[in-house]
Amino acid sequence: MQKSVVWKQKSNIYSNIKIIAKQGMAMQFANRSIISIQDFTKEEINYILKTSQAMELVAKTGTNTLKGKILATLFFEPSTRTRLSFEAAMQKLGGTTIGFNDVETSSAKKGENFVDTIRTVENYADIIALRHNLEGAAVVAKEYSKVPIINSGTGAQEHPTQALIDLYTIQKEKHQIDNLKIAIIGDLRYGRTVHSLARALANYNVELFLISPDALRIQKNILKEIKNKISVTEKQNVEDILPKIDVLYVTRIQRERFPDPTEYAKLKGAYRIDQKILKTAKKDLIILHPLPRIDEIASEIDQTPHARYFQQVGNGLFVRMAILSLILDTTK
Amino acid sequence: MQKSVVWKQKSNIYSNIKIIAKQGMAMQFANRSIISIQDFTKEEINYILKTSQAMELVAKTGTNTLKGKILATLFFEPSTRTRLSFEAAMQKLGGTTIGFNDVETSSAKKGENFVDTIRTVENYADIIALRHNLEGAAVVAKEYSKVPIINSGTGAQEHPTQALIDLYTIQKEKHQIDNLKIAIIGDLRYGRTVHSLARALANYNVELFLISPDALRIQKNILKEIKNKISVTEKQNVEDILPKIDVLYVTRIQRERFPDPTEYAKLKGAYRIDQKILKTAKKDLIILHPLPRIDEIASEIDQTPHARYFQQVGNGLFVRMAILSLILDTTK
Amino acid sequence: MQKSVVWKQKSNIYSNIKIIAKQGMAMQFANRSIISIQDFTKEEINYILKTSQAMELVAKTGTNTLKGKILATLFFEPSTRTRLSFEAAMQKLGGTTIGFNDVETSSAKKGENFVDTIRTVENYADIIALRHNLEGAAVVAKEYSKVPIINSGTGAQEHPTQALIDLYTIQKEKHQIDNLKIAIIGDLRYGRTVHSLARALANYNVELFLISPDALRIQKNILKEIKNKISVTEKQNVEDILPKIDVLYVTRIQRERFPDPTEYAKLKGAYRIDQKILKTAKKDLIILHPLPRIDEIASEIDQTPHARYFQQVGNGLFVRMAILSLILDTTK
Repeated sequence: MQKSVVWKQKSNIYSNIKIIAKQGMAMQFANRSIISIQDFTKEEINYILKTSQAMELVAKTGTNTLKGKILATLFFEPSTRTRLSFEAAMQKLGGTTIGFNDVETSSAKKGENFVDTIRTVENYADIIALRHNLEGAAVVAKEYSKVPIINSGTGAQEHPTQALIDLYTIQKEKHQIDNLKIAIIGDLRYGRTVHSLARALANYNVELFLISPDALRIQKNILKEIKNKISVTEKQNVEDILPKIDVLYVTRIQRERFPDPTEYAKLKGAYRIDQKILKTAKKDLIILHPLPRIDEIASEIDQTPHARYFQQVGNGLFVRMAILSLILDTTK
Repeated sequence: MQKSVVWKQKSNIYSNIKIIAKQGMAMQFANRSIISIQDFTKEEINYILKTSQAMELVAKTGTNTLKGKILATLFFEPSTRTRLSFEAAMQKLGGTTIGFNDVETSSAKKGENFVDTIRTVENYADIIALRHNLEGAAVVAKEYSKVPIINSGTGAQEHPTQALIDLYTIQKEKHQIDNLKIAIIGDLRYGRTVHSLARALANYNVELFLISPDALRIQKNILKEIKNKISVTEKQNVEDILPKIDVLYVTRIQRERFPDPTEYAKLKGAYRIDQKILKTAKKDLIILHPLPRIDEIASEIDQTPHARYFQQVGNGLFVRMAILSLILDTTK
Repeated sequence: MQKSVVWKQKSNIYSNIKIIAKQGMAMQFANRSIISIQDFTKEEINYILKTSQAMELVAKTGTNTLKGKILATLFFEPSTRTRLSFEAAMQKLGGTTIGFNDVETSSAKKGENFVDTIRTVENYADIIALRHNLEGAAVVAKEYSKVPIINSGTGAQEHPTQALIDLYTIQKEKHQIDNLKIAIIGDLRYGRTVHSLARALANYNVELFLISPDALRIQKNILKEIKNKISVTEKQNVEDILPKIDVLYVTRIQRERFPDPTEYAKLKGAYRIDQKILKTAKKDLIILHPLPRIDEIASEIDQTPHARYFQQVGNGLFVRMAILSLILDTTK
């Protein structure tokens, strides 16, 4: 490509971003925390998805809009995807990162309480992405912090930015979210991505199927909340409904939750998605997974057109760029 | 604010910094290591405090003066505050960071000696911030390294940049250091921040009270050194002197130092700062703590005007920006 | 130095780099993975060495050619030198870094397989530097990754960028590689740096001596491969050949490989390089070591003109800058 063409394309991107950004300011994303996917209206979610799309081009070259800004990633639990994609997103926007991913090397090791850690780090960063084993940690952090908090997975509760990535992937791959039949399968009780995604989908005109062993059914309060808005069917087997599903969202069943290992072994097998089970699936069924997967999706699926979980993980960069940009960019 | 106003304000900041910086060069901060607070004259300390103040505005937008420079944070012991604030300070000045905070993932794990690690990292960084469990580690590092070493806490010895933060906070909150009555309470024997702070305060016209259980009194050589310069009173109880104190500097009593757990329990309770004990305190008493705290300051104090330890932790960014800038900035 | 002179010098550097870079493009370094030193022709190796030399000046000020690019350092095994020098190299070129150096804090902890980790991180980074305990890990990563993989040490197999640093150091210190007598001593069986270096040297007109206990001799297939190209002599003692050697490359003998501790103790002593053993050495003998060393080189050697292992570790920055620049720089 000629330099002038690249430049023209680039300045179009940037003026698009500016327009999007101006609309975003009207929605008051600036300096806002993200604790739950329910913090957002449907209009706001759609706006984040639109911004994410614009970020696909920005990611190629990087930009300088967050120059001088610092993201702190405070990860009290292991992570590869969420931490690295947040850090890459910040860097692609011209910002920098600090943080820890091992609580053993932080002052928590000396007995510091969580709130004091937040009241320390808020001084060194412009925004904090927080992962914690305890539910409510993000809420507490937001209460004390003068900088925005992004819940990046807390306990079994919520993982709102993952839900935004899931929605973005569905829209990108199926060109719509409305009018789809979507099944979520696996650990619906403890899977924090599931809680955020189900709530996010309740904003759209979708038919939702929740497939899990009885012991791992979604919590009643969340179920009730979603059922108020959309059609939800709970099932224990995936085979019956597979032929009519457009999106199959698979999650990892956490072995450690089962009191009876034989039941785990039985259920685990029942939910393994492989070529054989997909024989009855629609040709254009897409399969998503928040990853990491263990063996709930056979590797033989990876090469089929159904598999979109690696596209999904890639979208994490664009959606997190959009989030950071909307919250922090003051050049708009 | 209008753009032109912001810009004018900005260029004022930068020209101020340039003037300060020129004076600093005369003091030869360039490429200097910081091992002990005693490396500095009173004039130099005051100059660092002045530069720290200028950095409060620089921190808001960031600058590019340390572009291309690299800070290595080599932390052989856990840290949240010191490491993250040094990294944030470097990034706010346009520099970048490398390092490790877990000796288990470094070559020390393979048996490499400390000096070889320094002689390696000096090649990759323009300055090294070092935390180590052994006293003398910073001195040894300085002896071998071709780049400046900042002692960021070594054994029970010194933590000079913390003392600078403490002084800066006192000056900012009380508008002076001279003529204050300052009490340091807790573990005065093993607390490295205490050693640096007491020595730093000895440069000023202050009255110092050192409050600790007998087993945790400050070392005789340090006491003698300070007594040569200022009035120092050692005490075991805080209650008697509290009514006349201007600054109460609380430190963590390290349970592991006590041979007798019942004595620890007894002393620990005696030194817990809460609303009740503060009844006799001056209205404008300020309480500082290098953090992390365990329970030596009750959380009920956090909301009172006495509490300035979170302002103090925030000042860490400005003081460390000043230090890095004075040592590394060649654009002056 | 006057500003104008510095600037002229600087622009000469940059135009030199541009010329070198153009030649490099003809060799198609762009977006290429580095798995084995055998991926390169002799011409390409010489070209990397030439680029490394140009980087010595660039490293002083830093540059912006890799702005917006991200290096991921995925280290499944401990490292100080390799990881920090890759990160410093990326930063000196204007790029940024993400990654992990402790597999315990990554999703591998949750059971994620290695290939999924690669297929995740390839989305967040423009290049991946990989260290892994398993041989073949870099080959597998390259097969799946859409971004270039740099083998930064995999199992006992290869460590190609270390070999380039070794060659660069020999050339810089001896002003030639051809016509030298080079001895490699220590663990030739499991030492991955040895395998890469021996193969690299086979491109030049050198006489190679391989000195090891019988249990740690180089693998037969590698020996055969090298013997096809250059003169190789295997020995168990260093004393006989020391008087004629130009370069002595010492490696760490890994205690854990020996079934019989008494044999280890005996051999270890035999290979310890100290002043006494060097009495018969050439005056201009240079000693290299990939580091970390334990006690196979006495510290008394460090101050002699023979010791070049700290120069060698410093060259790591320049060679890795060259590699990253050749693979990623699209401004050329």
